[in-house]
Amino acid sequence: MSREVVLEYRNTGGFDIIGSGRTKLEEEAQFDKVIENCQKLGIKALVVIGGDDSNTNACVLAEYFAQKKSGIQVIGVPKTIDGDLKNEVVETSFGFDTACKTYSELIGNIQRDANSAKKYYHFIRLMGRSASHICLECALETQPNVTIISEEVEQKGMTLDDLVTEIADVVMKRAENGYNFGTVLIPEGVVEFVPAMKKLIASLNDILAKYEAEVAVLETNRDRRDFVSTKLDEESAEVFTSLPNAFANQLMLDRDPHGNVQVSMIETEKLLIDMVKAKLKKRKKAGEFNGKFSGQSHFFGYEGRCATPSNFDADYCFTLGYTASLLISEGKTGYMASVKNLTAPADQWIPGGAPITMMMNMERRHGEMKPVIQKALVDLKGRPFLKLVENREDWAMNTRYLYPGPIQYFGPASVSDITTFTLQLEQAK
Amino acid sequence: MSREVVLEYRNTGGFDIIGSGRTKLEEEAQFDKVIENCQKLGIKALVVIGGDDSNTNACVLAEYFAQKKSGIQVIGVPKTIDGDLKNEVVETSFGFDTACKTYSELIGNIQRDANSAKKYYHFIRLMGRSASHICLECALETQPNVTIISEEVEQKGMTLDDLVTEIADVVMKRAENGYNFGTVLIPEGVVEFVPAMKKLIASLNDILAKYEAEVAVLETNRDRRDFVSTKLDEESAEVFTSLPNAFANQLMLDRDPHGNVQVSMIETEKLLIDMVKAKLKKRKKAGEFNGKFSGQSHFFGYEGRCATPSNFDADYCFTLGYTASLLISEGKTGYMASVKNLTAPADQWIPGGAPITMMMNMERRHGEMKPVIQKALVDLKGRPFLKLVENREDWAMNTRYLYPGPIQYFGPASVSDITTFTLQLEQAK
Repeated sequence: MSREVVLEYRNTGGFDIIGSGRTKLEEEAQFDKVIENCQKLGIKALVVIGGDDSNTNACVLAEYFAQKKSGIQVIGVPKTIDGDLKNEVVETSFGFDTACKTYSELIGNIQRDANSAKKYYHFIRLMGRSASHICLECALETQPNVTIISEEVEQKGMTLDDLVTEIADVVMKRAENGYNFGTVLIPEGVVEFVPAMKKLIASLNDILAKYEAEVAVLETNRDRRDFVSTKLDEESAEVFTSLPNAFANQLMLDRDPHGNVQVSMIETEKLLIDMVKAKLKKRKKAGEFNGKFSGQSHFFGYEGRCATPSNFDADYCFTLGYTASLLISEGKTGYMASVKNLTAPADQWIPGGAPITMMMNMERRHGEMKPVIQKALVDLKGRPFLKLVENREDWAMNTRYLYPGPIQYFGPASVSDITTFTLQLEQAK
Repeated sequence: MSREVVLEYRNTGGFDIIGSGRTKLEEEAQFDKVIENCQKLGIKALVVIGGDDSNTNACVLAEYFAQKKSGIQVIGVPKTIDGDLKNEVVETSFGFDTACKTYSELIGNIQRDANSAKKYYHFIRLMGRSASHICLECALETQPNVTIISEEVEQKGMTLDDLVTEIADVVMKRAENGYNFGTVLIPEGVVEFVPAMKKLIASLNDILAKYEAEVAVLETNRDRRDFVSTKLDEESAEVFTSLPNAFANQLMLDRDPHGNVQVSMIETEKLLIDMVKAKLKKRKKAGEFNGKFSGQSHFFGYEGRCATPSNFDADYCFTLGYTASLLISEGKTGYMASVKNLTAPADQWIPGGAPITMMMNMERRHGEMKPVIQKALVDLKGRPFLKLVENREDWAMNTRYLYPGPIQYFGPASVSDITTFTLQLEQAK
């Protein structure tokens, strides 16, 4: 890789120079293959760029390489737009800033449209798998009328109907103020945080794995739904059969390589629109609701994953990469590159590194206890979430939309160089 | 409206200061109501901001007001992201530049992701109703692997299967080169340009209007499909029943106020993914295809409609607004504000105006001949389309993606101030 090649890709998004993979390294045969390939290519150090899973892998690889005296070092770098790789060593993962700003640009545009046409409720689902960091950050950047935070849904033990009621109540109260439009932010993983749905999905994962052959030969979705229903326990079967067919079908779609449901394929935003509509129809009949409700659904995922990086992310990545190379030249292995003091200007950032083992916890995976990096969920006592709670009523009843516009590279630093509200609030003195 | 109020909204997108409506003014009672309201409020001139329909309205209103000697002037301003209000007087409508740049930012991001993960085909449907100007401009800005242009589909009399074959062929050839990923741009109105679908949709419009009461009482989509099928002629019934249920249901959704199908609600991108998948499965069985095909669907509409405007659109709108006010002070009515020489720097732009009647044609509407402004479709002999044709094979077989990134307001003029490829190519000497 010459300087000329690298320069073409510098400060651009994505991984189109080196590619990207999702294969999990779990078996010794795979580890040995890595050693073999590295030795063949004369590679003395590997830099693993990824989230909690990839860096857990990096740690395991480093230990194995050391034990085998292969001489190959492994350094981890925190990358995930989801923002859930965060701990004492890692203030934020790169990509989170850019993804949130890109989604917030789009949410802002939609809010401007909502406030111009004044006739639609836009239900916007945002990528981010389990944790709701993206949803929370985008809410702070755009001030929508309703923001669902999965971690809160789980803590309160909310049902789907509770969620629908919460949204329908906002629609009703806004209608009383003359507003028949609004925006609702939905984290893509929320269905897995509704206890009854979580249980249903876990059962479906097991059933679809156990009866793979039987299900594969069924021709229609209806046949598959009927078959699966008979294998569920009574409670889950009741939930499953109460869902609209299209949504139930999505819950049965192909699992990911780890046997989990692919939350990005589940159109929760459409389900919620249908359920809110049905609830408001009932309330209208009962004379409790006199407004109008018309929903539009959106899902933002891939649009924000490989966006041209914000100045913050470009600076952060450059510093992380440089730090990783220093850790290698210092002979470290099993370390994660770390850059701290990130809300200060870049020349005051503090590069460093720490053993990945420091971040490991024992968790049950496939029935076995394994050391893994714990996913950081939204802290319901943290300042970013409390900021949302503090403003929730005001943002719901009024129209306090912010329109952040597109990421800027030039112009005043207050526009182009600041990072997320999340990080600023977390680090506020 | 004080200067202070206006300043807060200057150079921002959308219509949240004045709101936006879609009500068509067609009856004299409505015209009289406008006069009454204007007189009550002391309004001496109306500025109508909109596309072909709104400006047709502006023209009719102006004539009526003059005939009634109301003394109220009417001036039109060309606004539509669709880019289909374009003629000798109007070089482009405002909003087209911003919308295309916003969509192209997102398409570029998705292409970067496609080229990083190297495992998905992204089918991206773009707003723009009938005309494919947005799709064509975005293709020129991002160089995707496949671009469908509705006007070409109609000219060639293509069937859905022809479209699917075209895409499947590209997927096959790319797989032979080792590429199992790509991007496909789809104009939202394309189904209305496939002759058999156009006929089906026209029949459905009539049937759903004629049997409104009968259809309204049917409980399920299946019942509605069965009922509608019996009313279609043989050819359309065959097309209708061959469609996947979900798609057939979308074709039966509520019509817009003009009785037309709402193309934004029809998920053509999902239909095409399913059909391409089915075709490739057959080819795989026949040993003709050895690659992989996995589709991801996207629809971009509202995200680009009220975006923060590009410098070009902000300058253009300001000039149009100022020009409209000059036309009013000159006593004109029934004129459209016009600004020419738009690919030159803004200080060389040429403001002016022309009677809207100059743009009118007689067209059949609801069985009657009426004067309307003709929608400008993509010119299949024009330079923008020919540029696409010239590069089509190369962009399909190779990976020539461009990643335009977000709209910039600061920095070099070559980044922040240039307008669309469409306009540049149309005006190239």
